[in-house]
Amino acid sequence: MHGATAPRRAAILAVGSELLTPFRTDSNSLAITSALNDLGIRVVWKAIVGDQQDELAGAVRHALSLADLLVLTGGLGPTDDDVTREAVAEALGLPLEEHEAIAEGLRARFAARGLEMPAINRRQAKVIAGATILPNANGTAPGQWIAAGGRYVLLLPGPPREMRPMLAAVLAAQVAPLVKGARVMRRVVKIAGRPESWVEERAHQLYGAWRERVPPIEESTLASPGQVELHLSVVAPSEAEGHAALQRAVDELLAVFEGEVFSTDGRSLEEVVGDLLRRRGWRVALAESCTGGLACSRLTDVPGSSDYVERGFVTYSNRAKTELLGVGEELFAAHGAVSEAVAEAMAAGARARADVEIAVGITGIAGPGGGSREKPVGTVAIAVAWPGGGCVERYRFTGDRQAVKFQASQAALTLLRKRLEQV
Amino acid sequence: MHGATAPRRAAILAVGSELLTPFRTDSNSLAITSALNDLGIRVVWKAIVGDQQDELAGAVRHALSLADLLVLTGGLGPTDDDVTREAVAEALGLPLEEHEAIAEGLRARFAARGLEMPAINRRQAKVIAGATILPNANGTAPGQWIAAGGRYVLLLPGPPREMRPMLAAVLAAQVAPLVKGARVMRRVVKIAGRPESWVEERAHQLYGAWRERVPPIEESTLASPGQVELHLSVVAPSEAEGHAALQRAVDELLAVFEGEVFSTDGRSLEEVVGDLLRRRGWRVALAESCTGGLACSRLTDVPGSSDYVERGFVTYSNRAKTELLGVGEELFAAHGAVSEAVAEAMAAGARARADVEIAVGITGIAGPGGGSREKPVGTVAIAVAWPGGGCVERYRFTGDRQAVKFQASQAALTLLRKRLEQV
Repeated sequence: MHGATAPRRAAILAVGSELLTPFRTDSNSLAITSALNDLGIRVVWKAIVGDQQDELAGAVRHALSLADLLVLTGGLGPTDDDVTREAVAEALGLPLEEHEAIAEGLRARFAARGLEMPAINRRQAKVIAGATILPNANGTAPGQWIAAGGRYVLLLPGPPREMRPMLAAVLAAQVAPLVKGARVMRRVVKIAGRPESWVEERAHQLYGAWRERVPPIEESTLASPGQVELHLSVVAPSEAEGHAALQRAVDELLAVFEGEVFSTDGRSLEEVVGDLLRRRGWRVALAESCTGGLACSRLTDVPGSSDYVERGFVTYSNRAKTELLGVGEELFAAHGAVSEAVAEAMAAGARARADVEIAVGITGIAGPGGGSREKPVGTVAIAVAWPGGGCVERYRFTGDRQAVKFQASQAALTLLRKRLEQV
Repeated sequence: MHGATAPRRAAILAVGSELLTPFRTDSNSLAITSALNDLGIRVVWKAIVGDQQDELAGAVRHALSLADLLVLTGGLGPTDDDVTREAVAEALGLPLEEHEAIAEGLRARFAARGLEMPAINRRQAKVIAGATILPNANGTAPGQWIAAGGRYVLLLPGPPREMRPMLAAVLAAQVAPLVKGARVMRRVVKIAGRPESWVEERAHQLYGAWRERVPPIEESTLASPGQVELHLSVVAPSEAEGHAALQRAVDELLAVFEGEVFSTDGRSLEEVVGDLLRRRGWRVALAESCTGGLACSRLTDVPGSSDYVERGFVTYSNRAKTELLGVGEELFAAHGAVSEAVAEAMAAGARARADVEIAVGITGIAGPGGGSREKPVGTVAIAVAWPGGGCVERYRFTGDRQAVKFQASQAALTLLRKRLEQV
């Protein structure tokens, strides 16, 4: 490691013409960015190039003019289209050498399946002079790590199941020792059912103060209809200091948002609701109309949810609401199927018929048709019934049919969460 | 248009440091690629760069060494971080000029909301010398179209709702006249419940012949657990020739795959099932265990599905299966809850209790726990009941809990489709 400098700025280059179609894009770079950020290395440039050696070599040169660490994914296969080895060697001005041990390993891999190695696979034994060879437990293409003139180049295979373990290994063995000392830690604070602007307005005052702290807290917001996530990170000299700095920031957010935060430890809303049910030994039943089973399906995405999800009723027709839940037909005439009264009757009926402690009723207009002036598309009533009590809320969501369904399921899980936190 | 050459090779450059975090990536480029491909223009390079003017100018120069059309998105806002105008002017060696009509339009936009234009917004009135100004109906940042030395540069805003209409307008007005004659047409053939390798093995023989045809058919495969899509495209001199060439290829695929293809016109599986139900005037009920309501939720993703989805039963517990569907308790003891016998009883019970023409029953082990040697995780039994008959199938899906749930819902909708096509 004599004279080795720590990389600070990384570039990521995904290789493959299939990544330049309208149907696919590079997703490896997100995992790579996250892992590099954890070591305090920033990504300053990402690109996707096809399978032309000269174009790829040009992209490598351009990337190395901007970054001191270049990570390439893909193009390490055995075919003529796989030109990453050749292009990097060309760009660095280094020769390619056939590596007998790799060729031997490839032959053994084929022999184990009773096959002779195809001649084209010999290309995968070519190594850039001076490179460290990175074994591939899940495929034939080995990776390569090259340190040249204060810059570093990392060649990884494209398939994620081959790429990910190799990335973890090379970051631990080759990169972490170069950047020792820096340590990036993260926390994610999640809020359901509030728009990004509402969250930003209230959190904004904190961001300025965080940037001035030692160590400073960085914040990045990820918003979708129905959920806002605040991603906090810190580069700290020790785990204890990083943890304390993040906990202080999380506590400040909790003070601002009170009960609106549902998760500070990475759990999803359905996991949080499931854990609350399990802790109380309660079982839940769901009665859904406009969400069509989505809320129940989300709760059952959690392993072990059969411990607390007793049943769900998707009462899409009024007849089903009456037959399965005992919703009185007079309620439809008096209030309409989308009403607080029907939502309450659905929740109460589900709780009684399933013989569970807590139940939810959801009825609304997902659209695009079915709206009226009084009850436009996006109107949803949600009720929760529990031992000796209940609550009901009316919402007005925006967006297309699937966005309304998701936001309604999010609101239903949030009402369940808030109730379960009180008992 | 005197002397103007048609662009054939495009590069796409997304600008913005937020696109270099682990949480976001550029998605505009997929819509841009699709629209360019439709005009016969191939994308050869895509990149994401941050908000540094010199790095962005370098990336513009690099892109123009590879492509004759460069599309940039983002960095057209009013703040110091918005440097796309300056960087492109620098790379092209052209001056920036303040455009009084744009400044006037910006002032009017703010005035309409009773506001004075902030001084920083004047930056948005800067135009590269000779550029065509592209109006922005949904925001303050105008786009720019520059033809310089046989190369073309297009500046678009980053927010998709501003970018998309501007892209459509500039492609129609500026780009289409340059590439007149070429016309790309597409068809998508969708297959459910078969792995990619199974589909490729059978379709592969066709691809070679397609490439030799006049006009040649290009094929691209998009696979996920439970669904394979074959995307066919053709560059044809006329709409009639393109349509005929694609129809011939689609017919060849239909001959190879017989009943396995569920869609050749873009419709999703849930839309296809819905249309079959509507055509027959039948109503459906679903009885789900391991899918937790997912199959019913997918069917109700389709607008108007309340016409044919009567109800769903999410019978997660055995008690619910017995109470709601009349599944005999002796079946659990004799066959287990995950069995063909229970799936059949669920489907028959759902059909009788909901009083509908057709019903489906789904029971399985989504995992990760609950498997046994005889019934490993991923084992799912699915039954369909219809007037005077029924069928049942047993599957063994792989993947995590959510992958098993999705594949089971896909198989259930496929069984429904196949039966509805026969009656």
